[in-house]
Amino acid sequence: MAIKFEVIKEEKYTGARLGKLYTPHGVIDTPIFMPVGTQATVKTMTPEELKEIETQIILSNTYHLYLRPGHELVKEAGGLHQFMHWDGPILTDSGGFQVFSLSSLRNITEEGVTFRSHLNGSKHFIGPEKAIEIQNALGSDIIMAFDECTPYPSNYEYVKNSLERTIRWAKRCKKAHKKESEQALFGIIQGGTYQDLREQSVKEMLELDFPGYSIGGLSVGEPKDLMYQVLDYTIPLMPKNKPRYLMGVGSPDALIEGVIRGIDMFDCVLQTRIARNGTAMTSMGKIVIKNATYERDFSPLDPNCHCYTCQNYSRAYLRHLFKTKEILGLRLTTYHNLYFTLQLMKNIRQAIKEDRLLDFKKEFFLNYGYTQ
Amino acid sequence: MAIKFEVIKEEKYTGARLGKLYTPHGVIDTPIFMPVGTQATVKTMTPEELKEIETQIILSNTYHLYLRPGHELVKEAGGLHQFMHWDGPILTDSGGFQVFSLSSLRNITEEGVTFRSHLNGSKHFIGPEKAIEIQNALGSDIIMAFDECTPYPSNYEYVKNSLERTIRWAKRCKKAHKKESEQALFGIIQGGTYQDLREQSVKEMLELDFPGYSIGGLSVGEPKDLMYQVLDYTIPLMPKNKPRYLMGVGSPDALIEGVIRGIDMFDCVLQTRIARNGTAMTSMGKIVIKNATYERDFSPLDPNCHCYTCQNYSRAYLRHLFKTKEILGLRLTTYHNLYFTLQLMKNIRQAIKEDRLLDFKKEFFLNYGYTQ
Repeated sequence: MAIKFEVIKEEKYTGARLGKLYTPHGVIDTPIFMPVGTQATVKTMTPEELKEIETQIILSNTYHLYLRPGHELVKEAGGLHQFMHWDGPILTDSGGFQVFSLSSLRNITEEGVTFRSHLNGSKHFIGPEKAIEIQNALGSDIIMAFDECTPYPSNYEYVKNSLERTIRWAKRCKKAHKKESEQALFGIIQGGTYQDLREQSVKEMLELDFPGYSIGGLSVGEPKDLMYQVLDYTIPLMPKNKPRYLMGVGSPDALIEGVIRGIDMFDCVLQTRIARNGTAMTSMGKIVIKNATYERDFSPLDPNCHCYTCQNYSRAYLRHLFKTKEILGLRLTTYHNLYFTLQLMKNIRQAIKEDRLLDFKKEFFLNYGYTQ
Repeated sequence: MAIKFEVIKEEKYTGARLGKLYTPHGVIDTPIFMPVGTQATVKTMTPEELKEIETQIILSNTYHLYLRPGHELVKEAGGLHQFMHWDGPILTDSGGFQVFSLSSLRNITEEGVTFRSHLNGSKHFIGPEKAIEIQNALGSDIIMAFDECTPYPSNYEYVKNSLERTIRWAKRCKKAHKKESEQALFGIIQGGTYQDLREQSVKEMLELDFPGYSIGGLSVGEPKDLMYQVLDYTIPLMPKNKPRYLMGVGSPDALIEGVIRGIDMFDCVLQTRIARNGTAMTSMGKIVIKNATYERDFSPLDPNCHCYTCQNYSRAYLRHLFKTKEILGLRLTTYHNLYFTLQLMKNIRQAIKEDRLLDFKKEFFLNYGYTQ
């Protein structure tokens, strides 16, 4: 087995889990947030900086790496860790999400998906076996089964047919996966916002006995309350002794709400994407650094933050960097947003240890400006 | 006096100088190359990274900082060092070069230059007093007298009139400069490619007794041989006990040729600009990293280089970053090019110490692919 998962503690009032996930490239304290390195780089950051902010695991995208530079090239380079100079754990997604959301002229059959590259229109095919072949070549620690992430809203019949095909694809992924001792293959639970379909998906995925499970098809445009409802009825059906990963979710409120409901792992491009647009997450909510109000503000982004950016630079300087389109501005804001989020996860873990997660949530929401 | 300059040694065969320049923010070993931080940031780099590659002094641009964020704002921030979190020496140019090269609708009078911003067309005036006022507000260690850098080619009359005005402006700069104990004001020698005008410029500038002198108006499109000729007849007229700064020159051959002729300081945007276009300087000449030939080249940019980039990343990975337009590619290549250039200067200083600068030149030119 490539990974081992231990639940160390369940929080007294919520059941939120504190855990340890052992992978071939290191041990991860859960619950955890995974910065996204779409194209074999977490945008603007070096691996050393990722370690400095205590990144424990990163996510990279199968679809993108398959197109550029190609998984065979990454394999020749010695695998993704070596290629990108990151020696910590890596999770790769299945490519399914991007095949369905980015590519054009998709044709879905039982066999897999024929699509055209969003880059140059070239024609490609990815099915379950190919998705595993690519991820085997990349050499990530955790790999995902090929799935269809249904959009929101989708009608019942479409979601049912899709999730049943995703389960048949998961079986084929399991069969195709040749490196079980080096890479852990996770199953993905789909079913949209239909309770009986989520139940069906969990039930049939559990029969395949994957070492971990993710919940897909959320944070795709549905209201947050509806996402939380789906988590409320889905998570209790999932095994307690395996990691639970909520895909593509990463806003501070959703991280806290997800952990409260029993999630162990998250990933999201939000932190890095808004950073590059000049939006910083702070303990007092988001700030848009280009705003004129910060022109002569010589205080740090977040006075409560101990990150490199906040220790050394002012809002006025960051605003100047964004106004002049200087790359250092993107770097410093990305660094801060990721640090902020990883610290949030650390604080969440501490709150679980001390059985005060609901108090922590209350305080965080109040300061951040969320309504409860 | 803000600075002190010592010539420690002259090379036996060329007279190239090894020196120490003491500034309010640190001691600089000369000859030195100054990375350019146009808008209060050396593009893509943090100050810590600049220190890691042994940057001793950076240059920043008066014209750009005057327009954005404004020198008054920088002053409020505690000066340029504090604003940009760089505690080493800084040299600022006079703004003259950009006023003449970037702005539109310039109107030059004896008083100064009225121009429109290249950013938004707004109308501004900079004359000698204003150029000093701005640089006093920025608080750089070395400031430059306001000058006109004449283009190449320019006719004799134009150059003569211009250099005479530049000398009158230099007198006004000296008079306007209120912080002689904190900031050293350098005079700029102009005169285009006319020997008698260079002689006139040196003679009249020396009468003003500045603590250092720069040679301006070169590397503006003239053939390199012509530039070396101008250096050959200009430098011997300059005082031995003061630093000599060749402005805007930074290609490896010109750095070596300049030092051989007695130059102590250089600056250039070449290193950082070509890095962002994906061109790396290596001990075996320049390489264009996007070229298909590097697609599966898993060796470093320069196998003889000990920089962070070369120790940890392959040409194939860097090519991938440039092909996918990832910021990390710009960072890593900029880091390497600046490291390469600062190492070159270090090697030049060592060669002066050991009286083997001409041998060093021969070997470097051979490896880099320059004809001699």
